[in-house]
Order: sequence, then structure tokens, then C-alpha cells
Amino acid sequence: MALKTIEWVPDGARRRVPGRVRLVDQTKLPEELVYLETKDVRELWTAIRELKVRGAPAIGVAAAMGVALAAQASSASDTPGLLKAVVKGASYLAGSRPTAVNLFNMLERMKKVAAGLAGLPPDRFREALAKEAQAIRDEDAAMCRAIGRHGLTLLRDGFTVLTHCNAGGLATAEYGTALAPVYLARERGWKVRVFADETRPLLQGARLTAWELMQAGVDVTLICDNMAASVMAAGKIDAVLVGADRIAANGDTANKIGTYSLAVLAAAHEIPLYVLAPTTTFDPAIPDGRHIPIEHRPAEEVTEGMGRRTAPRGVKVHSPAFDVTPASLVRAIVCERGIARPPYTKSLAGLLKSGASAGPVARKRRAAS
Amino acid sequence: MALKTIEWVPDGARRRVPGRVRLVDQTKLPEELVYLETKDVRELWTAIRELKVRGAPAIGVAAAMGVALAAQASSASDTPGLLKAVVKGASYLAGSRPTAVNLFNMLERMKKVAAGLAGLPPDRFREALAKEAQAIRDEDAAMCRAIGRHGLTLLRDGFTVLTHCNAGGLATAEYGTALAPVYLARERGWKVRVFADETRPLLQGARLTAWELMQAGVDVTLICDNMAASVMAAGKIDAVLVGADRIAANGDTANKIGTYSLAVLAAAHEIPLYVLAPTTTFDPAIPDGRHIPIEHRPAEEVTEGMGRRTAPRGVKVHSPAFDVTPASLVRAIVCERGIARPPYTKSLAGLLKSGASAGPVARKRRAAS
Repeated sequence: MALKTIEWVPDGARRRVPGRVRLVDQTKLPEELVYLETKDVRELWTAIRELKVRGAPAIGVAAAMGVALAAQASSASDTPGLLKAVVKGASYLAGSRPTAVNLFNMLERMKKVAAGLAGLPPDRFREALAKEAQAIRDEDAAMCRAIGRHGLTLLRDGFTVLTHCNAGGLATAEYGTALAPVYLARERGWKVRVFADETRPLLQGARLTAWELMQAGVDVTLICDNMAASVMAAGKIDAVLVGADRIAANGDTANKIGTYSLAVLAAAHEIPLYVLAPTTTFDPAIPDGRHIPIEHRPAEEVTEGMGRRTAPRGVKVHSPAFDVTPASLVRAIVCERGIARPPYTKSLAGLLKSGASAGPVARKRRAAS
Repeated sequence: MALKTIEWVPDGARRRVPGRVRLVDQTKLPEELVYLETKDVRELWTAIRELKVRGAPAIGVAAAMGVALAAQASSASDTPGLLKAVVKGASYLAGSRPTAVNLFNMLERMKKVAAGLAGLPPDRFREALAKEAQAIRDEDAAMCRAIGRHGLTLLRDGFTVLTHCNAGGLATAEYGTALAPVYLARERGWKVRVFADETRPLLQGARLTAWELMQAGVDVTLICDNMAASVMAAGKIDAVLVGADRIAANGDTANKIGTYSLAVLAAAHEIPLYVLAPTTTFDPAIPDGRHIPIEHRPAEEVTEGMGRRTAPRGVKVHSPAFDVTPASLVRAIVCERGIARPPYTKSLAGLLKSGASAGPVARKRRAAS
């Protein structure tokens, strides 16, 4: 069973409201598993701001639950008053992480749902918002499970995978993207082994991926990024599983720095590399990887990111946050709607179009938004 | 001008004795440049033990200078008494780093030289030993310069290289091996730029390579190991320069973990990778890389190597200290006697044989040992 990164916990058995948000405080990892439980929108805002909850999907869920908390905390006795509290809460939460697209999308969705609740008794209004926030969480988990199900068809019992950064349950509501097939394999009783790159500079692989896999009882081995090639050469790896930040129309994939390195190494060792990501990361407006802007990170993350200075003061540092893996090095792209294979321009467009008349996840989404 | 990692500093202008050993305390890097100056064999022993001086060639020089200090400190008034002090000092120093081959070789050399000084007045005995220790340092520097001279023929004004770990001046008496062409290029007034891998887990690239290049005024940029591929893809790198711990008869090269990764990446980007190392690292008894034993390092270097714990307690860690780069990925092997090119079985054997009737460095060595 995968860890629940964030959930809505009702106080009582019969109704969702009153209830509280419970999330894993990721700033305490990997030293301690501490849950933050709160009914206070300001405390949730701070949790998002201070990266206690992180990963675009998980942040979206947190924001939606924050809106439900705002309605719950409001003493308004009619829907216009409650709606005002919802709009105020959403606007406040929008300032927590100003560049997170999922966050804005989910706040918009909550506001629209609230606007459609005019005339309901206050308690049912509050209940409906908590239900919607929970639905957002459940949809995210279902989407990750769907990615896992499709991804699992590419693997077999007894496989060993290598992964990079954290595209696991901690970045989503549950299961994750790149790690979803691993959790589903475990549910099926398959044997599965994972090598996790520590992922410099911020060590998400060491701090988060290794931790969440250990929590789930998965056999995980931590390596430094520069050891991946030697592990591949030793014949230990059956497949490389990575997430994606953005996927261009031709399949070029931007992901955490080091992914491209792994892709070149995997190709040289004839190991398939699979990208696992929701269709929301597909960006058909971007023709290829050359058009994906690459963020550069502060030098300090490299020179003193781990509690003490490990490089000379004033040293020049080059620290791109992402790199672009050309589609030619990606064996397949797995999303919640299925598996895209080369040529990606066609297969990715096909998957995006299939959403227009697609499965339960896509339908639920349209109905709700 | 490259930094002097270790040298013998006479108290006066005319004679070497009395004198002292001066070395860069590498445990203080990169925060401070602190020199340790000592006339005390025990203090030097501790400096070797505590990695204040490191790198096989530099340790060999330190040990030889330690023997000279032992003779200097002895109050014996005849050569049998002085010889006894030398043997005792050498035996004591041999216990500082029990697995360092250079250390044993240089202690043997100092003992042999001392044995040949029977009958000399005590002051001339002490002077001769200090001179021999200094000669060992100078030979190491000359050997590194020779590597640099040969290596420079593979490069050109304005080049940018990528290097891994520390195969620089700090590992030798001066200049280093992989970095020797960089220092010689600077002496010639060439423009040269270096990208330095930080080199997890022990960060020798960040702590030492970046530091010594900055000291020498070389344009150096620090990157995390997983960024090398993206820097190569951006067309920034003209050549990869690495050292070697051991080179098999067929040219397969064991070096710091991550070197093999760089070699695969360099080949994929059509960038030449050069191995720069003295002939003492050639091991003709080992037919190929499969026969090179690989040391595995403690998990703690990965999980808490930088002052605080960065991975879950109890996580399984795979941490080989070295990897093996197959000869097919090495464009050339540069040593003090010249440049070996594929097929290496022939070219390396030829260079080893050439030592029997070779240049100034080899001659000096034979004369002294």
C-alpha cells in the first residue's frame, strides 16, 4: 500500500465536515515521519510555502482542501457569505507558491464548484466543497494508478528499475508517476527492486524516493548519480523509470537534471528508458525540446546545500534544474490514458485526443470542472 | 604557477639542514589555505594519517621528507647511529597509511640512500637525505610536467575541458596528472576553461579541484556529476581529462567512480576522453579491467557525508569507489614518457619498455634507487 501524502480526515464517521487536512511534513524527511494536521487555512498556506507539501499534483490537492477549510471555518449563514469566504480563501492560497500551475487550476475548479452551490443550506455547501477536494485527491490517485497499470505492462515479475529524483507518491496524492508501476507490482505480489539516484543537488532521491520506498517495504538501494553507469554495466538494471516536467509535441522530455545523462547511459547499455507522466505534462504547443526554457538554480544549492560548505567561496557554478532528453532516447511515454511509442508526434497527439471521449478519470474531470 | 602541495623549506640560505616540511593542510580546504610546517616526524605521521596530505605521489614525498626529518632530529654523532634513526623513522612512517604503495617505495628508497652514506660526517649525512627527499619531490613535479607537456599536444589554445575527482596538484607534489596540461597551458598564456565534476560521494572535485584551479587563476566552473551530459550536449566541452588508479595491459582503466559514466557520455557526444597518469599506474600483470578489484566504500559517505544525514537511516547503499572504463572509450593514455593510442596492449608495453633507456625523469629515478 502506497503512502497517503495528503488526505481529508473527517472528525466524525458520518460526514466530511467538520474535518481536517492531514499531510506528510516532507521537510522532516527522511529523519522523521511527522504528519501535519490542520483546520487552519493559514497553517496550510505556510505548509505549501515552506515545501512541507511539494510536487505539483500534491500542491493542487492541498490548495483544494484549503478552500474547503476556508468554507468550513466561515461563520456565514448563507451561500453568498460562504462564497465570499471561498473566493477570499482561494485568493489567499494562490499566493503560497506563485508559479504552480496545478495550484491555480485546482483553486479555479473549487471556485466554480462553489459558485454552482448557490442556495444550498450552509452545511451542505461546506460538505460539497470538502467532497470536491477529496474528489480531486482521489482523481489524482486514480490517475497515478492508471499510469502504474499501463507502466506495469512494460515490466515483469522480478524486475529491477533505476529511478531518478522523486516522481513517487510524495509528489502526488498517492502512488506517484514513475514509481506507480513499482507500487502496483508490490500490490500484485511481484518481486521488484529499485536503485534510486540520490539526485544532486537537492537529493530528492536520497531524501524522498528512498524513504517512501522503504516505508512501503520495497527493496531499494541508494546510489550516487555518477554510479548509475557502473550499475548498468554490471547488468543490474532492467529498465529506467523517470517522470517528466514537460513533454514537447515530438516527445522530447524535460525532467530533473541528470535524466538526459541516464537516457544516454541507458541507450549505451541497451536498457529501455520509460517516461511516466500525466497528460497534463504534455505540451503540444512546444514543437521540440529546444523550445523548453530551462531554469537555473542558485549556486548555494551545489556549494552548501547539505548543511556545510563543500566548495570554495566564490566558485562559479553551473546548475540547470532540468535537462532535455531527446525523444530518440525514450522507449515509451506512459500516461494515464495509455502508452505512446515513437513516432511521438503522432502517438502523443492521439492520446491527447482520446481524452475527449475517454475513461473514468477524464470523464470525472470534465464533469467536475 | 601551480601550487606547491609539499616542499622542504631550509631554515637558512646555504644549506638544506636544518629545515622543515611545509604542506597544504587539505583538511582545511576549501575554507582556508593553511600550511602545516613541521620538523617533527610524529606531526608529519599524523598529517599523513589524517589526510592533511593525500594522493599517492604526495604521500610518497611526505614520507621521504619524514625520513629526512628523522635524521635531522637524531643526536647521533656517527653514521651507524644516524642510520638507526632513519630505519626507525621509516618504520614508524610506514604505519601511517598502511596500504599506500608509493609510501613504501619512497621509504625503501630513502633507506637505501642512507645505507650508501656510511662514513660521511653527520651533517653531510643529514644534508644528503634532505636532498634526496627534495629530489623525490622534484622528480614527481617533473614527471607531472612531462605528462602535461605530452597532454598539451592533444589540446589547443582556447580549449575547455571537463575533469572528474582530483587528479590535480594537490594529489601530487605539483601540477597533478589530469590537470597538468591545464597548468602548462596557463604558463604558455593559453586561454583554458575547466568544468569540474563535484564527484560524489567525497566531493574531491568541489573541495579540491575547484579550489586549486581558482588558486591558480584558472577559469573553473563547478557542476554536479549528473550535469556533465547536459554540458556536453550544449557543446561546451572539447575534451575530458581524467587520472587513473590502475591501467590494465589492454588499456582498461580503473579510476574514481563516475569516470566510466563520463567516458560513455563523452563517446556519445564525440568528445575525446584522455587518461593522464604516470607509468607507475600501468599494471601489465592485469590483462584487462575485469581483473581489477573494486573497493566498496561505507554507506555513511553517501548518507551523511556532508555534515548531516541526507538519506533514511538503514537504507541500503551501493558505493563502489572506482569503476572501470573500457579501453575502447579512451582516446589516448598520456604518461610522462609519451602518448599511448589504441591498440593499447602494444602501445602501453612499448612505453613501459622505453623506460629502460629513457629520458631525464626515468634516468634520475634509476640513479637514485
